[in-house]
Amino acid sequence: MDFLGSIVFLCLFSMTFAQQSMDIDHLDPDLLPRPLIIEFSESRLKNMSDDIAMHCTSWRVAVEANNLGPWKTIPDECADYVKDYMLGRSYNVDLEKVSHESGIYAKSLELGADGMDAWVFDIDETLISNLPYYSDHGYGLELFNNVQFDKWILEGVAPAIKPSLKLYEEVLSLGFKIILLTGRNENKRNITVSNLKHAGYQKWDKLVLRGEHEREKSASAFKSDKRKEIMEEGFRILGNSGDQWSDLTGTSTASRSFKLSNPMYHIP
Amino acid sequence: MDFLGSIVFLCLFSMTFAQQSMDIDHLDPDLLPRPLIIEFSESRLKNMSDDIAMHCTSWRVAVEANNLGPWKTIPDECADYVKDYMLGRSYNVDLEKVSHESGIYAKSLELGADGMDAWVFDIDETLISNLPYYSDHGYGLELFNNVQFDKWILEGVAPAIKPSLKLYEEVLSLGFKIILLTGRNENKRNITVSNLKHAGYQKWDKLVLRGEHEREKSASAFKSDKRKEIMEEGFRILGNSGDQWSDLTGTSTASRSFKLSNPMYHIP
Repeated sequence: MDFLGSIVFLCLFSMTFAQQSMDIDHLDPDLLPRPLIIEFSESRLKNMSDDIAMHCTSWRVAVEANNLGPWKTIPDECADYVKDYMLGRSYNVDLEKVSHESGIYAKSLELGADGMDAWVFDIDETLISNLPYYSDHGYGLELFNNVQFDKWILEGVAPAIKPSLKLYEEVLSLGFKIILLTGRNENKRNITVSNLKHAGYQKWDKLVLRGEHEREKSASAFKSDKRKEIMEEGFRILGNSGDQWSDLTGTSTASRSFKLSNPMYHIP
Repeated sequence: MDFLGSIVFLCLFSMTFAQQSMDIDHLDPDLLPRPLIIEFSESRLKNMSDDIAMHCTSWRVAVEANNLGPWKTIPDECADYVKDYMLGRSYNVDLEKVSHESGIYAKSLELGADGMDAWVFDIDETLISNLPYYSDHGYGLELFNNVQFDKWILEGVAPAIKPSLKLYEEVLSLGFKIILLTGRNENKRNITVSNLKHAGYQKWDKLVLRGEHEREKSASAFKSDKRKEIMEEGFRILGNSGDQWSDLTGTSTASRSFKLSNPMYHIP
């Protein structure tokens, strides 16, 4: 009886943990509570969860490869996936990868003696992170709210994206001119400067924001026009880093562009 | 005792399944058999394998986002990862995604009455698959061998990539002119035509291969030049599908380009 009692205890203990592990790894919370009779469909549930992970990875790769049309929110079923991605190690690993590849490219270049070789950086989700804001808004699950986002921006506390800070310091020390090109409005110049400095970005050659008369332009058109002006001033834009394809494509593009991961939102 | 007996049975049953689930999900079979004493390092083993999966996923996303410099073989440590990706469902899910997105875009367009709206398709790993060849060569782990690959091409048995066949039929029925633009040499025209027809591609308006004098051009330069000629003939290239960024970027680019997954090789 003592022996059986121990076995029972051990087994109940084991069941508890098995259940806990299932809960964490495999179960769709919408499907709970479920009768014991479907206990053995765990593999089906696991597969469902694998299906969602596969579908959401496919969606994320399509975002990064610029295969998607415009989208306003992340897919509902990818809410947990995107949150896990952003808060887990994968996001940082991806950012380190692109920083590393950008650095290899930057170091491979021989810069001209006239000091006109430039690297263009976007700001939001490229140099600094608005993840604290998006963590309050479902990591892209909620429709973008201009008023609320502006409030967050005006706090000026967005932290540095560390792998980008590393790249920034690298291209700066290589002798590139640093041009910051952002879709933020001109009226956010002061807070943007203060936030950048606070995050560790101490110097740059140009900080280009969106003027009053440029509010209607798409990000892609605005950034293309600004790159054109920059090139007309004599700069050679050898590298460009951004988290949106609209930071990188269009006209007057850089010799090489680097796309930082961002599965949370899309700016056309 | 009957009740306890049932509990014991149920619990042992539950432990068995918990163990099985651990075995399937987390353990590296190369490390078995292991002494019970290291039972608790399972999480480390899982993490090691997770690390490789995360690193290889990051590498694959960097390939698809065009963030990498030229590369000749897949990373050694990603051999199993790439094989699993190509043979599992993920590759097909990704191809279906890009086919679907391309179709949505194609249907959204209003074509001109002059019949000069065109869609450009690459051939290898876009319309037809050389996976049978690459399965004999480590899914990209071996250095590319021109002679061996030519032998495979001349067999003319590369199967259709089903999601691309679907897109091809869709854009054909929408009234697009179909232009096939491939890095294959002109001396492979007959076998290419025969392979394409065998795979289900019955008609196209142009099949452009690489001429004798164009062998030294990079794929990107060759395809840019050919797109320029096509545009000069009056075609509007509204869509472009390819598995290499060199199919899609450069000059005279399409209104919109779609990148099909290919983690096996890179053509600059």
